[in-house]
Amino acid sequence: MPPEPITPGSAITPGSVWLVGAGPGDPDLLTRRAARLIAAADIIFHDALVGEGVLALVPDGVELVSVGKRSGRHSKDQAGIDQLLVAAALAGRHVVRLKGGDPSIFGRSAEEIAALQAHGITVNICPGITAASAAAAAGRVSLTLRGRSRSITMVTAHARAGEPLDLDWSALARPQATIAIYMGRAAAGAVAAQLMAGGLAADTPVMVAVDVSLPGERLVRGRLSALSFLVETVSDDRPTLLLIGEATAPVTGPVTASASLQPGYSFTKTSLKCVSAPMPRVGLKPASAKMP
Amino acid sequence: MPPEPITPGSAITPGSVWLVGAGPGDPDLLTRRAARLIAAADIIFHDALVGEGVLALVPDGVELVSVGKRSGRHSKDQAGIDQLLVAAALAGRHVVRLKGGDPSIFGRSAEEIAALQAHGITVNICPGITAASAAAAAGRVSLTLRGRSRSITMVTAHARAGEPLDLDWSALARPQATIAIYMGRAAAGAVAAQLMAGGLAADTPVMVAVDVSLPGERLVRGRLSALSFLVETVSDDRPTLLLIGEATAPVTGPVTASASLQPGYSFTKTSLKCVSAPMPRVGLKPASAKMP
Repeated sequence: MPPEPITPGSAITPGSVWLVGAGPGDPDLLTRRAARLIAAADIIFHDALVGEGVLALVPDGVELVSVGKRSGRHSKDQAGIDQLLVAAALAGRHVVRLKGGDPSIFGRSAEEIAALQAHGITVNICPGITAASAAAAAGRVSLTLRGRSRSITMVTAHARAGEPLDLDWSALARPQATIAIYMGRAAAGAVAAQLMAGGLAADTPVMVAVDVSLPGERLVRGRLSALSFLVETVSDDRPTLLLIGEATAPVTGPVTASASLQPGYSFTKTSLKCVSAPMPRVGLKPASAKMP
Repeated sequence: MPPEPITPGSAITPGSVWLVGAGPGDPDLLTRRAARLIAAADIIFHDALVGEGVLALVPDGVELVSVGKRSGRHSKDQAGIDQLLVAAALAGRHVVRLKGGDPSIFGRSAEEIAALQAHGITVNICPGITAASAAAAAGRVSLTLRGRSRSITMVTAHARAGEPLDLDWSALARPQATIAIYMGRAAAGAVAAQLMAGGLAADTPVMVAVDVSLPGERLVRGRLSALSFLVETVSDDRPTLLLIGEATAPVTGPVTASASLQPGYSFTKTSLKCVSAPMPRVGLKPASAKMP
């Protein structure tokens, strides 16, 4: 398959804005369209969570503007970002707004679409790989299991400082369902307590994924009752996704009791990608497998 | 950005299997990794739902095996597919298993992982863009809205012939949530009735997406009470996704009453991609905008 030509300038109408999903961080998990749009932009506004490897694809000469928001560190508020996008589009520039993950899942894209359209600016969206999909792939599990895990619900556990976590616990605490909780680090203990109070079994399998798809990726598995401890073991201030439900157990069999007792063992990115089958339930194996 | 070299053969260890998400159909919505894995395979097993444009990327000389399952037309059962994958891997081939959408979301990947790992075969997963993300992008909406649509739940409404649709209606019928129902054509009427019986307002905005991202893409919006009629208007036996919830209304404002009374007007792919802002709520505008 010959590489297709990249034709900068053809992709974006001047004065329009593309909201582009950057995926979980690994530039190989960008879509082909996203890569082309990045190559064709002349100004790119990006979140703090967009991976460095993705930003490395930005051609020289393209103006790169960080409008990063991180939990507790809002460098620009949403209204300020909206204004920057509107101004760049009205100036006739080829604007890309690069968002971590998928713009449509906790990406606050609706605010930006509304602001841009209110000024008569055309908005297009390029979807991205969301963290739950990337984490399942990294952990070699599915988010759904025929007859056993029949839905996947994605929520965010990012509450403003001092505010209680206000999720629909009775809708979430269902046995035949998978839950993906984005930005779940701070709330992990509350999440586990509420789900168990709502009826989920304490031994429901969970997987914690930090920096999914990035060089420092960490994955660890265990039981719902140990969720807070698992998170403390592998997480820091980096993006942390919690996957909860039967589907997150290794598909070769149920999570063993010993696995839940050894949460300190985590999979590093390289070890997980190169293990030979069957996949170890808990293990640590540094390696240097090259990704395609 | 110079095109990166594609190095066939370097990506896949002989005797291993990559489960690769083909995304919703448009080859531009493949990830860069998926494109490389396709280029490096020597045998590819694909679903019926993998887009023709994606299959067109398969190099000459690569063995391409359709193991397509479509609703009501199972050309191979899952055990048969598992056997084919195991046999190809044990023969030392570079095996790609190409699945529509994301392998982890209703892709039955767990069965294949289990079968392969039981034979000592290494399995890797490359995530894909799932239909809900692609449909939201095509419709220029978000799947979540800060403070108003705080979760996105993906379920499948594909029941075996003669079996009732058995979903967790009380968990789904929540006002501040978005629902994506995959394979939703046949069940649209039952879905609407059950969700309204569960308490969702009859005027909850909905969007129906058929063949998302493909040349024949159809999108139509309306109200939950008209869901079955909307589906009949735009759907046939092609993959049909139902999006339900406040987030699916155009972000410039609520769906108007007239829109819900005119379900026969649908957006074609080209019209939706090239409209100038503000986005029409209901309209049909053939055009020939070139996608990047």
